[in-house]
Amino acid sequence: MKINGVPYRTIWPDTAATGFVRIIDQRQLPHRFVIEDIRSAHEMAVAIKEMHLRGAPLIGAAAAWGMALAVQPSGSEGAGDWRARLNTAARELKATRPTAVNLAWAIDRMLAVGSTCDDAGQAGFRLREEAQRICDADVDACAAIGRHGLRLIEEIAARKGGAPVNILTHCNAGWLACVDHGTATAPIYAAHNAGLSVHVWVDETRPRNQGAKLTAWELGEHGVPHTLVPDNAGGHLMQHGMVDLCLVGADRVTRQGDAANKIGTYLKALAAADNGVPFYVALPASTIDWSLRDGVREIPIESRAEEEVRCIEGLCLDGEVRSVQICPERTHAANYAFDVTPARLVTSLITERGVCPASEQGLQSLFALLRPAV
Amino acid sequence: MKINGVPYRTIWPDTAATGFVRIIDQRQLPHRFVIEDIRSAHEMAVAIKEMHLRGAPLIGAAAAWGMALAVQPSGSEGAGDWRARLNTAARELKATRPTAVNLAWAIDRMLAVGSTCDDAGQAGFRLREEAQRICDADVDACAAIGRHGLRLIEEIAARKGGAPVNILTHCNAGWLACVDHGTATAPIYAAHNAGLSVHVWVDETRPRNQGAKLTAWELGEHGVPHTLVPDNAGGHLMQHGMVDLCLVGADRVTRQGDAANKIGTYLKALAAADNGVPFYVALPASTIDWSLRDGVREIPIESRAEEEVRCIEGLCLDGEVRSVQICPERTHAANYAFDVTPARLVTSLITERGVCPASEQGLQSLFALLRPAV
Repeated sequence: MKINGVPYRTIWPDTAATGFVRIIDQRQLPHRFVIEDIRSAHEMAVAIKEMHLRGAPLIGAAAAWGMALAVQPSGSEGAGDWRARLNTAARELKATRPTAVNLAWAIDRMLAVGSTCDDAGQAGFRLREEAQRICDADVDACAAIGRHGLRLIEEIAARKGGAPVNILTHCNAGWLACVDHGTATAPIYAAHNAGLSVHVWVDETRPRNQGAKLTAWELGEHGVPHTLVPDNAGGHLMQHGMVDLCLVGADRVTRQGDAANKIGTYLKALAAADNGVPFYVALPASTIDWSLRDGVREIPIESRAEEEVRCIEGLCLDGEVRSVQICPERTHAANYAFDVTPARLVTSLITERGVCPASEQGLQSLFALLRPAV
Repeated sequence: MKINGVPYRTIWPDTAATGFVRIIDQRQLPHRFVIEDIRSAHEMAVAIKEMHLRGAPLIGAAAAWGMALAVQPSGSEGAGDWRARLNTAARELKATRPTAVNLAWAIDRMLAVGSTCDDAGQAGFRLREEAQRICDADVDACAAIGRHGLRLIEEIAARKGGAPVNILTHCNAGWLACVDHGTATAPIYAAHNAGLSVHVWVDETRPRNQGAKLTAWELGEHGVPHTLVPDNAGGHLMQHGMVDLCLVGADRVTRQGDAANKIGTYLKALAAADNGVPFYVALPASTIDWSLRDGVREIPIESRAEEEVRCIEGLCLDGEVRSVQICPERTHAANYAFDVTPARLVTSLITERGVCPASEQGLQSLFALLRPAV
């Protein structure tokens, strides 16, 4: 997608054959746009661990590039056998965010490619090739989600006779979480690029404010009309006909279609159901957890540091980015990172293979060959 | 309620007969506890307008004290007839927050008392007496709400066999919004003071963070166990049995029981209904608007400045209170201050006259003599 008119991905190799990899340092957004050069597997591990980048698909792509950097002949990984360097990198990268499914998957894929190589030169070439392939596959999946979701937006646009289609989204399931397009944002960009009039209600997404920081930024840079709202506002907007559809991403979807996503998603799904607003969850196949059924009971919910709730970071008048404490010194906070939206509240799932009901039958209809019924 | 062990009200006269009035400057909370002396009707008008204090009941009480200050013989209101001073004060005070019902009501009541007085001395005495009466009546109403709500908490406590009763609240319908006790917090303080084990989930309440700033502070000072949560968290808490009841205040309740309250209340009511959690709205009779039925359609919702959404104020590490901008420079925000919870989602209303169903019949059963059926 575009930043100030220029197309970008979130991660890309430099143009030289054995150089470095560039990423957008998302910790600096939205107040500063900083591109960071990553020159080794270790630097990539630090970037993932310290959240210079985030989002499951992007983390997988970044780990793949980290593996490619580990075997580059002119790299800064130090002396030693390239196979040893690759194994060391795999261990370090896997330890950065142990719960992200895509991370281990990408690293294992890179190790498998490495195991077929005869020397450092071949490994350097083939691992770069594979990392690029992982990135391109993610872009293709997101683009396909965009095409399938676009049809849903087109139907509403036709019904509204050209009036803007109002879409509410929560958190950042945008291109910044992927390599390009995003998941929930893919249909929005597709619609905007196709000339449809869309307007996005961007949930702030406390406590980490990914909506205010990242979604508002990427929509703004690409030129998509949007308005920031507190997480509290969605119900009121839907009560008053100001939302035509909700469109969110997911961190994990069970085989029966329950969707874990950023905390607060469930509240929006309830409001959508109460007001007859369609509620869509966009996801690539890699997000489906075929081993689980009842998401509310079975999906473990991460608890994060209470400081994320007690404090908020932003830009001061003097141009400095600071953290401010919003509650009394002694106040404790709870910080559940996700909640689960039961399938009954989800109108449809939008995947790279098409749109389906949020149910076991629905998912099987698209992914029957991928996973048999248990 | 108590602050650091000492009982306080939010507004009180000094002990001398013709002195000043003291208020807690709520703009400074929770980071600083500042008591402000108000020496004239004009100073009180500024305090109301610039939100040194807020909350409909407290605004009414403050305006009443402002009127009393206008006629005090040794006041700083300048020369001139005491009746002229009183009328000037009434105009200035009424203009501070023109939408607050209690404000005009209290000022008119003070004007009526003034009209029966013969001289400045008598007026000074009787207006002080009336202002105190208004304060005491508010305290009595809140205390009665506390007694009625206490029974509901006692029932749950009995069922839980002594385990803490978990109560979720939104915004600040606390004693800081009233003269003492609060509305939604009154049953909580009553339960805590009666020795019941209660724990409060305090919704942060974006955008103005009255939960994080005020409710967390007042509960902490009085010693009531509580945990701050993002507004997004309530659905997850209720899905997992971590909330026994929701208890909120209201800014306006229609004759059929629809309740306007701080934006986001409706989302919590939906989650409560979806999870079988009782949802109570606490209110004094003055909050009932007998002229309206359908709250979603008829209650006007105030839109406030977008800077309240784009920026958040808090305490920096260096001890300074600063405002930080949380979104891109160009991002626009919408700021709807309230939403309406339909009566069908409200388990009961808790008023100073007792607990009743959120319906016209329910309200009539308690307030039949107050307002006839239309």
